[in-house]
Amino acid sequence: MAPNEIYQYSIVTALLDGVAENGLPLTDLLKHGDHGLGTFRHLEGEMIVLDGIVYQMRSDGSVTAVDLPSASASKQTETAVAPFAMITHFQPAQSTQAVLSDKADLHSLVAFLLPEAHNVYLSFRIHGRFRSITVRTVGGQTKPHEGLTEVGAHQTSNTFEEDPPIEGTIFGFRSPAYMQNVSVAGDHLHFISADRRKGGHLLALVSDGEVTVEVAPAYKFHLELPAHDDEFNDAQLQGDSEAIAAVEG
Amino acid sequence: MAPNEIYQYSIVTALLDGVAENGLPLTDLLKHGDHGLGTFRHLEGEMIVLDGIVYQMRSDGSVTAVDLPSASASKQTETAVAPFAMITHFQPAQSTQAVLSDKADLHSLVAFLLPEAHNVYLSFRIHGRFRSITVRTVGGQTKPHEGLTEVGAHQTSNTFEEDPPIEGTIFGFRSPAYMQNVSVAGDHLHFISADRRKGGHLLALVSDGEVTVEVAPAYKFHLELPAHDDEFNDAQLQGDSEAIAAVEG
Repeated sequence: MAPNEIYQYSIVTALLDGVAENGLPLTDLLKHGDHGLGTFRHLEGEMIVLDGIVYQMRSDGSVTAVDLPSASASKQTETAVAPFAMITHFQPAQSTQAVLSDKADLHSLVAFLLPEAHNVYLSFRIHGRFRSITVRTVGGQTKPHEGLTEVGAHQTSNTFEEDPPIEGTIFGFRSPAYMQNVSVAGDHLHFISADRRKGGHLLALVSDGEVTVEVAPAYKFHLELPAHDDEFNDAQLQGDSEAIAAVEG
Repeated sequence: MAPNEIYQYSIVTALLDGVAENGLPLTDLLKHGDHGLGTFRHLEGEMIVLDGIVYQMRSDGSVTAVDLPSASASKQTETAVAPFAMITHFQPAQSTQAVLSDKADLHSLVAFLLPEAHNVYLSFRIHGRFRSITVRTVGGQTKPHEGLTEVGAHQTSNTFEEDPPIEGTIFGFRSPAYMQNVSVAGDHLHFISADRRKGGHLLALVSDGEVTVEVAPAYKFHLELPAHDDEFNDAQLQGDSEAIAAVEG
């Protein structure tokens, strides 16, 4: 895959239906990119991928770099899978410094940076210090097939307002409205602190002065659907835009 | 691309919005498969691709094999473009003989043949003789950006009930419901006669005894979005499931 093409495994509607028993092995996921986001088996926390390293951010506040088996190891050692993930070989097309007072600022800034990319996917990375960052982390399914809305009901939210301000990186995607049910329409962003000890799904932010915003458009989107997966095959996948916005917005 | 992976250029919602001025050169389209369907610049008729040959089926009843420039020819000779198309390297996973009394028969038969592929894309090809085939062919835009619904209002429908029964091939895709707005949810099929003189977008069929039905699931879907295309970039792309079903169902 060329830089900035996006590879996605499964669809967000399947997560809504609780399809999270199986998934794409993380070693396979990393063949398609070095920056991304997603979740883990049983919705056990939030995933962010930066520079080819996969981090798992759990609702107990722990953050771990996932230890992946080497290529020579047995296939059986691969227990880490993503029931949903998006990944890209990120190569910024535009870069700027900006003060961000909220997510809406970020939304309009990115639209301004890439006016020719209204109706396509975007990837973006933000790095700097933040006066305030609010994230949530899902706590995992408490029973098989539990849907994302129910799992989200017992998620943990955390706001980091530290002195000195927390330093970290946000990475994520903007998906066009017509991809609702497949990806998450609008901005879907995950955050991890520079010390790799805090993070989650980004809900709100206030930058501490200027931060670096890098963005790239994506004109090619590769979707892999679960094969030989009864849970996916049996799911209703009706979709629910309001539910997606509520739990992933 | 491996057999049965699907490559799609642009989205059906863009056609609804009349985005049909530009498109993917057909020589590029054919790099991604040998069987498919789509339309042409300005919605000038229906496209079917069989065994690597692109046919244009116009509302005046004419059917022509599109003459593509050789690889050595100048880029400027490539005037044939697809503003929307889906294509695959078709390799049947299941094949059967069946009597089909209507499109609903076909729908249930294909679901029966591939019970493990409820929620993914399918490609299928039907060949045989038909007591009745009804197709429509869009007549092209009468002004720039004219939407598919308006163009469809002045389409031509034809029913072929011949003696002997017309022989021909149907090719198309079944797209999952969650891909509405992107592809055409449900079955989207085009027909061409064995003598390559008649065809269009399939509306109804009655087989003459048994016909051959070949089907394959697709777990990988590759979407290319129009780049450097102001018409696509400026489109609203709100989507309208009822309009898609009305004009493409």
